[in-house]
Amino acid sequence: MAKFITIGERLSTTAPAVNKAFTERDPEPILARAKQQLDAGAFYLDVNIGPAESDGVELMKWCVELLQSNFDNVPLALDTANKAAIEAGISVYNRAKGKPIVNSADAAGRIEYIDLAAANDAIVIALCNGEGIAKDNDERMGYLMTMLERGMEHGMEGEDLWFDPLFLVTKGMQDKQMEILEFIGQISEQGLNSTGGLSNNSNGMPKHIRPIMDSAMVAMAMMQGLTSAIVNPNDLRLMETIKSCDVIKNNTLYADSYLEI
Amino acid sequence: MAKFITIGERLSTTAPAVNKAFTERDPEPILARAKQQLDAGAFYLDVNIGPAESDGVELMKWCVELLQSNFDNVPLALDTANKAAIEAGISVYNRAKGKPIVNSADAAGRIEYIDLAAANDAIVIALCNGEGIAKDNDERMGYLMTMLERGMEHGMEGEDLWFDPLFLVTKGMQDKQMEILEFIGQISEQGLNSTGGLSNNSNGMPKHIRPIMDSAMVAMAMMQGLTSAIVNPNDLRLMETIKSCDVIKNNTLYADSYLEI
Repeated sequence: MAKFITIGERLSTTAPAVNKAFTERDPEPILARAKQQLDAGAFYLDVNIGPAESDGVELMKWCVELLQSNFDNVPLALDTANKAAIEAGISVYNRAKGKPIVNSADAAGRIEYIDLAAANDAIVIALCNGEGIAKDNDERMGYLMTMLERGMEHGMEGEDLWFDPLFLVTKGMQDKQMEILEFIGQISEQGLNSTGGLSNNSNGMPKHIRPIMDSAMVAMAMMQGLTSAIVNPNDLRLMETIKSCDVIKNNTLYADSYLEI
Repeated sequence: MAKFITIGERLSTTAPAVNKAFTERDPEPILARAKQQLDAGAFYLDVNIGPAESDGVELMKWCVELLQSNFDNVPLALDTANKAAIEAGISVYNRAKGKPIVNSADAAGRIEYIDLAAANDAIVIALCNGEGIAKDNDERMGYLMTMLERGMEHGMEGEDLWFDPLFLVTKGMQDKQMEILEFIGQISEQGLNSTGGLSNNSNGMPKHIRPIMDSAMVAMAMMQGLTSAIVNPNDLRLMETIKSCDVIKNNTLYADSYLEI
């Protein structure tokens, strides 16, 4: 089995400092956060520029070139509701370290993101929902099949669709957590890849609890076959857990120094 | 689903201080370790008096009475190769907080421990091995069936046999870890209970790694349906992980204070 793939989530307009740096085209805060994430072991970096309706094309190009030129062609997930911006980012993207990831498609209004990924030989994160959150795993699987077929029709390899079960908030939807984990198992049984914004699980919990809860969740999800997650790589406990699960799954060879690698 | 059951492992002759206290019938070190484990959230306490060939009967009775009188009839696992000592312990055991656990039977030389548990209306930890470690899960399942049938023949309820897959050392048997986890899933699919000496997984690893590795393992095992484990309850990270997995599995209701309970 391949090693679990982490996608660092910290370059996002939802962080005020990052938003400001994007707006002002100020490289330093962006490079600093990128370095922190890569030093902590992130493999991909997500670049979330928000809706970016006016200047998305230019901004995404700037981000891709900035990050890849400073960090040896670091692989990136391009994250925006502006499709033209994703295409622009891919146009300047170097694939030496991995295909670009299009973040994200769904089975409703954003299904065309699959076509976009197909046309650009990219990976796509495919959210298993339509209009609103699926009511059960049959519905999730229906969305998955819709998106898988769409990708196939456009010539994609199945492995380039990374299906996202949509992690749900435990506070409020505690009784749904095992359903999500079972769905990850269903994705895995079909030999398909998966990912997701894992920390949504601990949304609203006290700050000191979140790394504990997220670590428990990622281990359970990796047992179910989750192949990737969008995470805060500077959550040390989480990264230690991912590395340990990779050892238990025999994805990486154990050495006494495995946590430092 | 029921909450995960922890069995505290720290009252064992393998710890020199405990061994000395057992030999000298010195209550203080034993009570101190018992209190540490119970304060940390252990449900059962294992009392491992070793082979105890000469004075096992007397020693086990003394331990049971000492612990149950000081800690409100704390439920105990009676752990020794001396069968008469287990029977003696049960003869003075108070069941108010839970049946005694006989630790342990296997499918070979120790199969009579199942008869002993049946005759005394006790729970039994049933190691899924015969002579030496099983080579695969088919063999493990064969041992499980042998022991389950033996228990049934003697009138036991299936739920009182807690099957132990035997956790294996990752250093040396890394490629067997998923097999053990799959076997836990097989036990769970049959609606049966399970337990095991989880920390064997991290045996021989640097001390600072063991809580990290054990926590990853327990979360994966709980995903697979493990219902209990023999653990060091004073491993804070491990206990936090168990409590978090119980929340994710909806075994306990989430509250912001769930880690303190």
